[in-house]
Amino acid sequence: MIKNTKVNAAILIIGNEILSGRTQDINTSTIALWLNSIGVKVQEVRVIPDIEENIVNTVNLLRKNNHYVFTTGGIGPTHDDITAESISKAFCLNYEIHKEAFKILETYYKPGEFNESRQKMVWMPKGAKLILNPTSGAPGFIVENVFCLPGVPSILNSMLGGLTNEIVGGTPILSHTISLRTVESEISKSLTLVQNNNKDVEIGSYPFFQAGKVGVSIVIRSEDQSKIDICNSQVLEFVNQKKIEVVNRD
Amino acid sequence: MIKNTKVNAAILIIGNEILSGRTQDINTSTIALWLNSIGVKVQEVRVIPDIEENIVNTVNLLRKNNHYVFTTGGIGPTHDDITAESISKAFCLNYEIHKEAFKILETYYKPGEFNESRQKMVWMPKGAKLILNPTSGAPGFIVENVFCLPGVPSILNSMLGGLTNEIVGGTPILSHTISLRTVESEISKSLTLVQNNNKDVEIGSYPFFQAGKVGVSIVIRSEDQSKIDICNSQVLEFVNQKKIEVVNRD
Repeated sequence: MIKNTKVNAAILIIGNEILSGRTQDINTSTIALWLNSIGVKVQEVRVIPDIEENIVNTVNLLRKNNHYVFTTGGIGPTHDDITAESISKAFCLNYEIHKEAFKILETYYKPGEFNESRQKMVWMPKGAKLILNPTSGAPGFIVENVFCLPGVPSILNSMLGGLTNEIVGGTPILSHTISLRTVESEISKSLTLVQNNNKDVEIGSYPFFQAGKVGVSIVIRSEDQSKIDICNSQVLEFVNQKKIEVVNRD
Repeated sequence: MIKNTKVNAAILIIGNEILSGRTQDINTSTIALWLNSIGVKVQEVRVIPDIEENIVNTVNLLRKNNHYVFTTGGIGPTHDDITAESISKAFCLNYEIHKEAFKILETYYKPGEFNESRQKMVWMPKGAKLILNPTSGAPGFIVENVFCLPGVPSILNSMLGGLTNEIVGGTPILSHTISLRTVESEISKSLTLVQNNNKDVEIGSYPFFQAGKVGVSIVIRSEDQSKIDICNSQVLEFVNQKKIEVVNRD
């Protein structure tokens, strides 16, 4: 398998319930952490409503600008589940019954339970490749570089494992976190120096509140462990000089 | 105050930590719920990295397509906080010390504590209007229709209340939820009929798992309470016919 060094992805969250604030999206974090582990970097996330034109246009844009696109939501049996039909339109493919998916759900449900509503879930873009669903039967699907997953987090989570072989990732992105008992303004000058000395490493600074105390997590991210180690030493150097307590390292 | 009927907004989450999956975004939901309550509908959310070009281009796009844009993140004192400078570039404004913000933080900190790092937080686009921060002093800011807020959820949350007078909202979007002990496939046909009979009402169907039991929440959203009431009656009609248990209504 030939690996590109830089492989990127976009996540497209489809759902009015996220835009209205009713539901908190937690799928972005799940997908991003899994993608990182196989060497794919998420470079953009978008949340859009259940409107066909928006889905078609956004998918067509994102799939051109990214190696992979992951959509979540809109593949259930109700009227507001329009992802499969929209993806068909985005790729100019027929929207039709997927025979393999039909067989899977026919077997999954008890006799008589695979009703007309449930059969909506086997309508997909022609030629789509299935993403198996060990939790609730109804598969997701892949068209070219677009992976369509459900919105329910526990179901989505259970489907990612089976996808690893479908993704050609790059070099995994490694990360090291140093959590300090300090405030950002105490370390920002020193941290800027470390960043300037290590321009190809991503260094983030994130304040936190834990058990009534404030702190700052410094996150060092790179594909190269030795570069992380160098930054880490440089951070610890000023941390020691300033006599700042290290709360945690991982 | 003249109210438009339809007022929309975009949320722009700026931060590598969200894209890497390390941090779960919860600001979208906070901002969206608050905007709904004052009659503003979120029509798009984007998450982008801490890269100046991305911020400039995305802000310039979103501010043209929306009545309001809310950014979160990147206004702290560290090297990765580049929102204020990027917004200055997006609007072709000088990036300079904001005198009022300077005075606020000079008073907020103890003598000697308003150091060079903290002074970074008063650099803003020329002429920006401040958003006061009752939690941790450092203000956010407004340029035209773009509102820049911090990324730390508790701080952001404390700043929204003071913004209500800055927003001219439309008719508030009302919502009614009926939670049922059923599965989507049992009600999808009936629900589609209700949606088809009430095309200008947004009806969503969301499966849930609670205490080991599955259910479906039907969310009816409209600016017009009487339209919600009509949909509600039509939903309850088929729910009663099918003898489905109503778990909750709010």
